[in-house]
Amino acid sequence: MTPLRRADLPTPALVLDLPALERNVAAMAAWARDKGVALRPHSKTHKSGEIARRQRAAGAVGICCAKLGEAEALAADGIDDILITSPVVPGQAVERLARLARTIPRLAVVVDHPDNVDRIAEAVGDGGIDVMVDIDPGAHRTGVASASAAVALAGRIAASGGLRYRGVQYYCGTLQHVTAAGDRRTALAERADYLRTILAALAAAGLPAETVTGGGTGSFAIDAELGVLNEFQVGSYIFMDREYRDCEVVGPTFEQALAIDTRVISVNTPGRVTIDAGLKAMATDAGAPVVLSGTDPASRYVFMGDEHGMLITPCGGSDPGLGDLVTLVPPHCDPTVNLYDRYVVVKGDAVVAFWPVTARGRSA
Amino acid sequence: MTPLRRADLPTPALVLDLPALERNVAAMAAWARDKGVALRPHSKTHKSGEIARRQRAAGAVGICCAKLGEAEALAADGIDDILITSPVVPGQAVERLARLARTIPRLAVVVDHPDNVDRIAEAVGDGGIDVMVDIDPGAHRTGVASASAAVALAGRIAASGGLRYRGVQYYCGTLQHVTAAGDRRTALAERADYLRTILAALAAAGLPAETVTGGGTGSFAIDAELGVLNEFQVGSYIFMDREYRDCEVVGPTFEQALAIDTRVISVNTPGRVTIDAGLKAMATDAGAPVVLSGTDPASRYVFMGDEHGMLITPCGGSDPGLGDLVTLVPPHCDPTVNLYDRYVVVKGDAVVAFWPVTARGRSA
Repeated sequence: MTPLRRADLPTPALVLDLPALERNVAAMAAWARDKGVALRPHSKTHKSGEIARRQRAAGAVGICCAKLGEAEALAADGIDDILITSPVVPGQAVERLARLARTIPRLAVVVDHPDNVDRIAEAVGDGGIDVMVDIDPGAHRTGVASASAAVALAGRIAASGGLRYRGVQYYCGTLQHVTAAGDRRTALAERADYLRTILAALAAAGLPAETVTGGGTGSFAIDAELGVLNEFQVGSYIFMDREYRDCEVVGPTFEQALAIDTRVISVNTPGRVTIDAGLKAMATDAGAPVVLSGTDPASRYVFMGDEHGMLITPCGGSDPGLGDLVTLVPPHCDPTVNLYDRYVVVKGDAVVAFWPVTARGRSA
Repeated sequence: MTPLRRADLPTPALVLDLPALERNVAAMAAWARDKGVALRPHSKTHKSGEIARRQRAAGAVGICCAKLGEAEALAADGIDDILITSPVVPGQAVERLARLARTIPRLAVVVDHPDNVDRIAEAVGDGGIDVMVDIDPGAHRTGVASASAAVALAGRIAASGGLRYRGVQYYCGTLQHVTAAGDRRTALAERADYLRTILAALAAAGLPAETVTGGGTGSFAIDAELGVLNEFQVGSYIFMDREYRDCEVVGPTFEQALAIDTRVISVNTPGRVTIDAGLKAMATDAGAPVVLSGTDPASRYVFMGDEHGMLITPCGGSDPGLGDLVTLVPPHCDPTVNLYDRYVVVKGDAVVAFWPVTARGRSA
């Protein structure tokens, strides 16, 4: 049988460069071993049981999921140590959380409100679940807003029967993409000082945080220098995207392992062509993709609706032809992956596997 | 058995108000009957076999699909008269197109390049397929760029063995959301004048367009007054969204039938709360959603990443509570639907069905 080639596949397609992925997984694992910190990669990036298993095999202590639905999907696919990184609140979701806790060896969840602690304690009973206090780093998305609120919440967890108080989560999401490394470092250092006051208050109250979890691909190396986190939730490093490529790197570098294959479907206006990938082929929250290969990398992409994009050829360049394959770097990897059912896994031009996006669409 | 209530379901959820949907389907069908024009609703909005069948039952001559993958999914679900509204270009896609043409009574596709005509003719053989010349209305997305190119392409279709030349497609996508009705009318009238020159050239060449298909929810009533289109590809009218609600209406009005149910999951900062619906719960290309019910409709939504959004309470208002249900109007319906596997179909508070999003993710 003729091996399947990348060029034979329908487009748009979500393409994963397996050797680059493996090098990224290995590089982050080596970094964590070297620093003596725990890795708990965030699966919101890949939503894939296959990739989570590779991260675990390289030494990760477990994985993170953003939502209960993601955790259910990955647990069903055999992942057995999961932290859910946003509060699980409504009544029936708490019941689902309690059921999930009974099916895997270790499930952890963050909380930021006393009512939620009480509801989870009631649902879990003496089944047991690990609980972390989520600390708001100032973005006002989730998390408690003060050291006193953190101490009160940790005390409530510790006093409840079935909940195991394990520490705190502190994720400075809005600082991950501060372009200049110096600015990012200054902002993270200021936020680390605030976290230290909370950790000191918890320790003083007899509730020391065993695990301090957080960080991302933009901050992990600086976070490690600052020395407050001991568990790292890095996600995007395995794939990379245009947003992270736009930022100054601190620490180890990672390769572009994720791409979108597209094709030219209209060529009637000189200087521009239309490709078959629009806002259903990549998330639009981070702006436009860039060209990785197939035409001039200086070509500019413009979204043209659900199914199409325009590629504007730079002055003096030549337009790609009808049917040509053009490969893009996605602007923001996590929500782009969520648009696809499968990864086309390649080594060079050979398609070596299709991996399902296990937790695609599992936001609830 | 207790009937399932809307409030029992996990969030975020894509909710469809069945009575409102039925009234929207009936209102557009009545309008088309009254005007004596054909309706071919665009399924890129709903991607649903169930809804396509309801549109057909109300009198639609067939449906539109944006991509071959959508057409394959809906044909497999029993939809038997489909126009694919963007060119189907790469080699293997053309083979799939030819296979699809053999499985349903009527398949049509648009073309905008002679090479594509030749490739389709070769793949289809004498199996037959309807072909429309796509005319660029000036957006440079797809379509031929001049009357002479339209005549040449129509002649090439007519001269090929298995292709049936049926007319032209002319979709002024960028004019659908011109806010003021007067401005929209002026722009559409100018574009209709250009189309008339093309139709005259085709007729003069002995290639009159039997079908002139196009239009959308923002333009159909004006297009009908202008009298150049005879088949209407309206899509969003069945659901409506914030984008169309922001525009001045011409012609019949439609109800908001589509919504996103969300829940409050964090309440630690007075004046704002966090809900469990972010950029994986709705497409972000058209900006922010608005509140339909559950809290002050003047609350302002801010995207807070993949899974979360902030609702900022207006001055003097009161914040919703932890776990409260808040329902949003999606900013842009088509790509939002593409994020969900199913519609939760409701009548009031009762869940009456779950309908699959049949062609979700079928961009290729």
